[in-house]
Amino acid sequence: MIQRLTIVGVGVIGGSLARALRQAGAVGEIVGSGRSPESLAAAVARGVIDRAEPACERAVAGADVVVLATPVGAMDEVLVRIAPALAAGAMVTDVGSVKGAVVAAARKRLGAGFAHFVPGHPIAGSEKSGVAAATADLFRGRRVVLTPVFETAAEAVARARRMWEATGAQVTEMAPDRHDAILAATSHLPQLLAYALMDFLARGDANVFDFAGGGLRDSTRIAASDPVMWRDICLANRTHIARTLREFGAGLETLAAAIERGDGSALLALFERAKRARETLEK
Amino acid sequence: MIQRLTIVGVGVIGGSLARALRQAGAVGEIVGSGRSPESLAAAVARGVIDRAEPACERAVAGADVVVLATPVGAMDEVLVRIAPALAAGAMVTDVGSVKGAVVAAARKRLGAGFAHFVPGHPIAGSEKSGVAAATADLFRGRRVVLTPVFETAAEAVARARRMWEATGAQVTEMAPDRHDAILAATSHLPQLLAYALMDFLARGDANVFDFAGGGLRDSTRIAASDPVMWRDICLANRTHIARTLREFGAGLETLAAAIERGDGSALLALFERAKRARETLEK
Repeated sequence: MIQRLTIVGVGVIGGSLARALRQAGAVGEIVGSGRSPESLAAAVARGVIDRAEPACERAVAGADVVVLATPVGAMDEVLVRIAPALAAGAMVTDVGSVKGAVVAAARKRLGAGFAHFVPGHPIAGSEKSGVAAATADLFRGRRVVLTPVFETAAEAVARARRMWEATGAQVTEMAPDRHDAILAATSHLPQLLAYALMDFLARGDANVFDFAGGGLRDSTRIAASDPVMWRDICLANRTHIARTLREFGAGLETLAAAIERGDGSALLALFERAKRARETLEK
Repeated sequence: MIQRLTIVGVGVIGGSLARALRQAGAVGEIVGSGRSPESLAAAVARGVIDRAEPACERAVAGADVVVLATPVGAMDEVLVRIAPALAAGAMVTDVGSVKGAVVAAARKRLGAGFAHFVPGHPIAGSEKSGVAAATADLFRGRRVVLTPVFETAAEAVARARRMWEATGAQVTEMAPDRHDAILAATSHLPQLLAYALMDFLARGDANVFDFAGGGLRDSTRIAASDPVMWRDICLANRTHIARTLREFGAGLETLAAAIERGDGSALLALFERAKRARETLEK
């Protein structure tokens, strides 16, 4: 049971966590913090948080659990501000899509408190953003990755695990760098392809979107996601993402060459492998 | 009113056209043809077609309208077989996703009958295939492109237009090559990216799919599409597709370079353009 939970960044992820923990009866008071007073007021009005405290250094005072649910690019500044204000032994975790950069910032900013920092990433989300899109079941059946390092106290990891399990999520642990390499492929690459595809088409024939089918619509739904959030993710995971994009690009060149020389059997083999993999993903 | 409609290839597109025209009261008898006796039997059992005739040259006899709804790669062979059997003045149309190659085959195979051939492409579909997925409303509100050439009789174009309008579709005309260039971008490119992405991920870390979010699922739904159909489309539209893939790949390299040098403003500008374009697409 969490006595006082402070969530910094009450958007779709932070708000859904608040709703899920409340529904599970796993939390006493929920304090929300963030840059937008309107968004915090909406979160209070919707019953997502009990109390709004815009200044994060005041919001974390007295909290036994602090969740950083801001965009990845804002984490360092938030860590600087909250570090002196954290209660001794408070467990701090985050929901950032990149772990290496967040771990580095927390190690630098939290001092002794770093032992109670548990890097985390719920693999769930929405192309919608904002507290209005928050739902109590966003994490149910989804995977949450925790990436503790050698300094991290086992007790803090156990608390983070219990918190996420209360939302119905399945918790996995791995090293930050492995997380960042995997997510560069499974999440950051698809996102960049969706953005790149929409931008590519928008630069072409003015009427192309009149001839868009359901395939394009589905495959670019995530291009409606928040540009600032994704800029930050790209900057924070730049090495893995740039390498992954280039490896994927080399594969496209191979594919273009097979199409150009009319190599039907190479195309069929690739498309069949892809279809089988997609069927595995669906299970 | 179509007296006797013959559909060669009673899959999701051919079957949906049959259902839609039947529902609109726009057709008398519907004869279905195709390679799979089981599939034709299912189409009769479901009431999609009135009568099955596996041999396409027999199926088209006496038909005033013939629709070729086979994969693009089978069109040439079907045209060879039906050419001598077509009734004089029968309007022949197709639903292929590539128009240049189909026009070339029809011009070569149909002789004088080519004047009554109206190349067509309904921009509607499903990652599901087969007559079981056929629905009467598949084309409602969707766009159908007709690509008549200078030999095409205006009366034949008018008949094809009426047929598609009866299904609730919106009919547009353009040149075959313009169609193929646009579809290479709006349809063939997204499909190849979905296949390439699934194949890329399947070659990587064995557990990557455990860390797949909703974004990957959405953006690769179309990777479940029929590999043979897409091989044929790639071969039939190879020039436009290879060029489009390479242009897109060059854009990915530019993006990778921006990420590598940490150029946050270039990333933000691209992502914002893409998000705006996606919002336009949704309207």
